[in-house]
Amino acid sequence: MKITILGCYAATPRSFTNPTSQVLEIKNHLFLIDCGEGTQVQLRRNKIKFSKIKHIFISHLHGDHFYGLVGLVSTFRLLNRENELHIYGPKGIKEIITLQLKLANSWTNFPLIFHELTSKQPELLFEDSKLSVSTLPLKHRVYTNGFLFKEKAGDRKLLIDKAEEYNIDFSLFKSLKKGKDVVSEDGKLIPNRLVTADPPPPKSYAFCSDTVFDLELVPMIKNTTVLYHESTFLEDQRELAFPTKHSTAKEAATIAKEAGVEKLILGHYSTRYENIELFRTEASDIFQNIILADDGEEITVE
Amino acid sequence: MKITILGCYAATPRSFTNPTSQVLEIKNHLFLIDCGEGTQVQLRRNKIKFSKIKHIFISHLHGDHFYGLVGLVSTFRLLNRENELHIYGPKGIKEIITLQLKLANSWTNFPLIFHELTSKQPELLFEDSKLSVSTLPLKHRVYTNGFLFKEKAGDRKLLIDKAEEYNIDFSLFKSLKKGKDVVSEDGKLIPNRLVTADPPPPKSYAFCSDTVFDLELVPMIKNTTVLYHESTFLEDQRELAFPTKHSTAKEAATIAKEAGVEKLILGHYSTRYENIELFRTEASDIFQNIILADDGEEITVE
Repeated sequence: MKITILGCYAATPRSFTNPTSQVLEIKNHLFLIDCGEGTQVQLRRNKIKFSKIKHIFISHLHGDHFYGLVGLVSTFRLLNRENELHIYGPKGIKEIITLQLKLANSWTNFPLIFHELTSKQPELLFEDSKLSVSTLPLKHRVYTNGFLFKEKAGDRKLLIDKAEEYNIDFSLFKSLKKGKDVVSEDGKLIPNRLVTADPPPPKSYAFCSDTVFDLELVPMIKNTTVLYHESTFLEDQRELAFPTKHSTAKEAATIAKEAGVEKLILGHYSTRYENIELFRTEASDIFQNIILADDGEEITVE
Repeated sequence: MKITILGCYAATPRSFTNPTSQVLEIKNHLFLIDCGEGTQVQLRRNKIKFSKIKHIFISHLHGDHFYGLVGLVSTFRLLNRENELHIYGPKGIKEIITLQLKLANSWTNFPLIFHELTSKQPELLFEDSKLSVSTLPLKHRVYTNGFLFKEKAGDRKLLIDKAEEYNIDFSLFKSLKKGKDVVSEDGKLIPNRLVTADPPPPKSYAFCSDTVFDLELVPMIKNTTVLYHESTFLEDQRELAFPTKHSTAKEAATIAKEAGVEKLILGHYSTRYENIELFRTEASDIFQNIILADDGEEITVE
């Protein structure tokens, strides 16, 4: 699982900082999460293969999270994309994109499929044999969702030496991986646990931006491997966080701690702060395993 | 008169090139012409004072000419702009921008005034005592206008020594500057031309992008000081120019020559060309005074 931070600053793009966008590489997928202005340039700078992106998830319709989407869709068209592109985002996103394509007289030559979201309950958006993607309803100034990407438990790990020791025929290995007990060549019932080991625990990633501090989020992201939680402010600007429906670094750390996640990525920093290390310092009092997002950063989770 | 090229490449923004946008500084105005994705970042990089921009002219609704507009408008809002902002562009532009502001629940706190264009004849868009701005109807795949910025002739230049020699009272200097004949202190009629000189000739700037090669443009831009004419292609790709309604460098030079302009700026280069000097080489056979636009370039016209 690899997260590439294309942009992690709040409000407006600036000379050297970019608004929110990330690429999550997980189980052979390349998911794009949010798409602020300039995302397509950041994709190029980070050498990410445009054509492999098949699903784009947009948290909410504030400009710093989606103004780069129409440009990216247009560029896919210019690159002669043929594959389907799925866009998941709040109701209204389809009208915004299609209106612009229509007025430019440049409809896409690939299937562009919108999944407009309105539910305030968690919803399953995508699923295959290896993973699922669901919404995490967030509380912000406009309708907003975070996204939870969850790997499914894989096959059990076959202990080849043990399987041979117990005289199990090769044709039964698949059954063993699926967790079944089998009968050996000499007719004995071999319990699965003797010849297999647990698979690596499935990983998960929760993207939560933008959101006010909200403990109702905790049960939805319980034991997530990695949590990206916005921290627009430090506690010194705490009086701004609630009215703007944003969080402080300390609040993000509190959510991480309560949910028992393994790692917390902080981001969506207000551009008023010149030194983002202050976010780590503040959050570290509450939660230890912190990564500060920064544009261009690649975060690999083994 | 100063032109700052914020972006001058066709199609999509890339790591080191930007789509169309320019700032024209003329007679105390800062006009923004076109606004491709990333324009607000280019404004910052080129240290242009956002707040001084009061008029934005959009040639057409292809993404590489206006996808940065909604982000710029939103940033004006975040910067607490109070002054009016006038946006001139094809019909539809108001709906695109207002729909996005509405869905973000973030209407502007400054007057945002749209001037939607539909005419296929030249139209006066803006005028004050020092200059005028009119459309230049262009032929492209969608409804498109160029823009003609024309300084008005200034006051005549007073020759102080001569005025004193002819015994003209100080109170009449203003009339002299306005071109009037006056009566000297000793009662003689003094013809204006004896005590004044012609003012510097008014300058003009014609922005023509995107457009197919079109000789009907020539009378509209006759004797313009500076012409920016798109040259998406070289003659080697001539067969692409007409169907996509773009021009070659040679065609741009032909328009410059026929119109008798002083300088020609080439731009809107297709990203297929790595060496933009080739555009100068090709155009130079037809027209000599050529400037190759490049991102970040400042072109001052004395």
